[in-house]
This record gives sequence, C-alpha cells and structure tokens, in this order.
Amino acid sequence: MNILLASTSTLFGGNYLEYITDEIAQLFEGISEIVFIPYARPSGISHEKYTANAADFFKTLNIQVKGLHEFENPISALNNAKGYFTGGGNTFLLVKMLHENGLMEVLKQNITSGKPYLGTSAGSNIAGLNMKTTNDMPIVYPPSFDCMGLVNFNLNPHYLDPNPDLKHNGETRETRIKEFLTQNDTKVVGLREGNWIRKIGEKTTVEGREKTRIFEKGKEPYEIEAGTEL
Amino acid sequence: MNILLASTSTLFGGNYLEYITDEIAQLFEGISEIVFIPYARPSGISHEKYTANAADFFKTLNIQVKGLHEFENPISALNNAKGYFTGGGNTFLLVKMLHENGLMEVLKQNITSGKPYLGTSAGSNIAGLNMKTTNDMPIVYPPSFDCMGLVNFNLNPHYLDPNPDLKHNGETRETRIKEFLTQNDTKVVGLREGNWIRKIGEKTTVEGREKTRIFEKGKEPYEIEAGTEL
Repeated sequence: MNILLASTSTLFGGNYLEYITDEIAQLFEGISEIVFIPYARPSGISHEKYTANAADFFKTLNIQVKGLHEFENPISALNNAKGYFTGGGNTFLLVKMLHENGLMEVLKQNITSGKPYLGTSAGSNIAGLNMKTTNDMPIVYPPSFDCMGLVNFNLNPHYLDPNPDLKHNGETRETRIKEFLTQNDTKVVGLREGNWIRKIGEKTTVEGREKTRIFEKGKEPYEIEAGTEL
Repeated sequence: MNILLASTSTLFGGNYLEYITDEIAQLFEGISEIVFIPYARPSGISHEKYTANAADFFKTLNIQVKGLHEFENPISALNNAKGYFTGGGNTFLLVKMLHENGLMEVLKQNITSGKPYLGTSAGSNIAGLNMKTTNDMPIVYPPSFDCMGLVNFNLNPHYLDPNPDLKHNGETRETRIKEFLTQNDTKVVGLREGNWIRKIGEKTTVEGREKTRIFEKGKEPYEIEAGTEL
C-alpha cells in the first residue's frame, strides 16, 4: 500500500496543501493524472469548484486532476484511475455518497492493490475502520459508518488539545474520544494539524511537526513522536 | 405542551442545574416523582451513577427520580410517569437506545398529551425534528436520526461563537450549521449556554441571559433576544 493521510489540507495562515507538497510529489511519483473525490463539499461548495481548487494545486506538480463527479460511471472511473485524492469537508456526506454509489469497496480494492491514495481530514477519516471518530456534524444519514479500513485504527483529524481558558461546558475532544472508547475497542489516532500518517507496504508511521496523541481502551492517552510506527 | 429545553445542565463554575432551578420547579409544579432517562451517559458514566446525580438535585425540590433503566418494561414506565428529564451526554447513544427500544414515539405521545419534559443538551436535541445538528461524536450508529419533533426546528445546544484567536483550521460551529443548511431546509436554533427554550401550550419562546442565534436556509444568521417567540 502507498497512502498518505493528512490531518488537514491547510495549515493556519498557509496555502492549500502547501506544507505537504514534497510528500505529495513523492506519493504520486510517475503519475500524470489522478481522480479527485469531491463529495465531502466543505462549506457546501460544488463538486466542480472543489475539483478546480484541487486541480490548481496539482498543476504545480504537473499532475492532471479529474473529479469523480465528471464520470458517467464512477465505478469504472475508480478502477481505471492511477491514483486518488479525497478532500476534506463533511464526513457524513462523503461516506453516504460512497456507500450509496457502491464506491467504498471499489476504492478500497484499488488502494489495497497498490495505487497511491491521498486523504485530508474527511478523506483521511475514510481510511480508518469506521467514521465514528469524526468531528463533523451528522448533516445527512449514511447507510453505514463503516469505512475502508486501510489502517487498523480510527483517525481523529484536526485533533485539538483542551483549552483551559474556555469558559464553556461542551465536551473537549479528549472527552469525546474517551466516550467512543466506552462503546468501542478501537485504537484512535489523534492527529494534530501539521501531522500525517504514511503507510508504505505494511509499514505505517506518523509524520509531521507535532507529537501525536493515541487513545486506547483501558489505557491513559499517550503521545508518540514523529517517525513512530503505528 | 409543557417543556423546557436547556442548552446545558451546568454553567461554567456553577453547580448541576443550579442556574435554572426556579424554572424547573415551575415546570414540575405539583409533581412528586419523575422518570430520568440516563441513556446519553456523559463521559460513559453508568446509568446508576447518572441517575443518582439527577436525584441529588431533585431532592432539593422534593421530587423523587427513578431511572428508566430501573424498570423491567420501559414503555409502560414512560406511560405511567408524571414527568420526564433527559440528561445530556452523547446524542448518538441516546437516540440509538430510544429507537431500538421503541421509546422515542412513546415519549413523544406522552409529552404531546401534556406531561412536563425537561431536556438538557442531548436531552434537548431529541425534542427537535432530528439530531442532525448535534455536536456529538458518532460513537454508535443509531437506526435513524429522527427525533420527537416537539418543536418545528432543530437545536444546536452549547452554541459557541467562532474564536478569532484560534490558529486551527477545523470548522467553526457556524460553518457546520451552514453545511447542514446546504442539505436540509430546517431552522436551527443556536442555543448558547445559559439559554433555554420554553414551550407552554402552542407558544414557544427562547429564554435566558444570552441572545440566541438563528440559522435558516437562504438567510444570513440572525440574533434574537430572550423572550422572543420562535
């Protein structure tokens, strides 16, 4: 397998995918065209506009981008593609579209067979076992929360540490993930912005500029350094 | 109808239900025992412990509390009860339990017939049309997102204004609710902590110390004062 799962597409004050350009170039080395999956629609933007944003970035790497919505038959589009990028947005919307159109399994098979995959945020969530640790609002009802399981854990992208100054009683991210662990025995990788997961062959590591917080049932959460194997 | 839907059970630095004691006393006037629905299990605490917490508060009002989990037949327990309180926690867990045990509709019928209902946070969410504007993590998969529809809108409890100082690219609450409105034509009441919704008969008002932010499809979000009819 050859996959890169980023916490976010854009760092605060940075440009789209900028901080991770070198890693993306390496991921898609030798490939001149990829399929972009725009279904997560951040802020509700159209598939066309979202695909154009992705294409703008990939132009700088001399890689052509086609949106999956442009194809009459998205299943054969996935089967014929050389590589994939799924952008962030709303995970419920993304997972609903993938399941309803029979694409989750097709995408998984292609990636498992070695085609490179880039995910950011919601696009990273779907590489986990299921979407039960997304931060997104359940704006639509997907037929299942199951995802591709390209890695044997769940992700929490945009992982955010508790803010001690916040005078607010909504749950912290850590509280939410601990609630998940009362109902599920699945490792959760709290991926801070600026970090990503890289899987090459059977080896999965966490990379980037921050430590990564790991949550497991029956253990205190703990931190691992960039480069650590997952 | 006679219902009170609070954004939160506890204000920052306050005690459980303290800020809303007078309103609760009024809601349950003349009633000496209510049923508590503990299914949302905040931080994964047990039904027993959660019910004990609620009972502690209601002792000060001379109202006895029985947890719904204590009854062999929860449907007849709901039908025989004089009033209800559903506490906060995880909305997915709460809605899953209510649907799987056939309780959502039974609770709705009893409240519609005039029995008083108190909800906080997740317990307020289930009074809306559906749970698609909860802030909670989807830690379990409910058979449906539909809720009781005691009011003709959705709630977003613990509504939180964007923090301009946060150097983080996760979505703000406002962005999430706007994404909801790209997929649904349902009014959303952004209920800040310290506020509640009160419905007596056919009249629904928003109450409390803060303004309330309203989101509707095709309109800019707007603010309403306490006392405004919804």
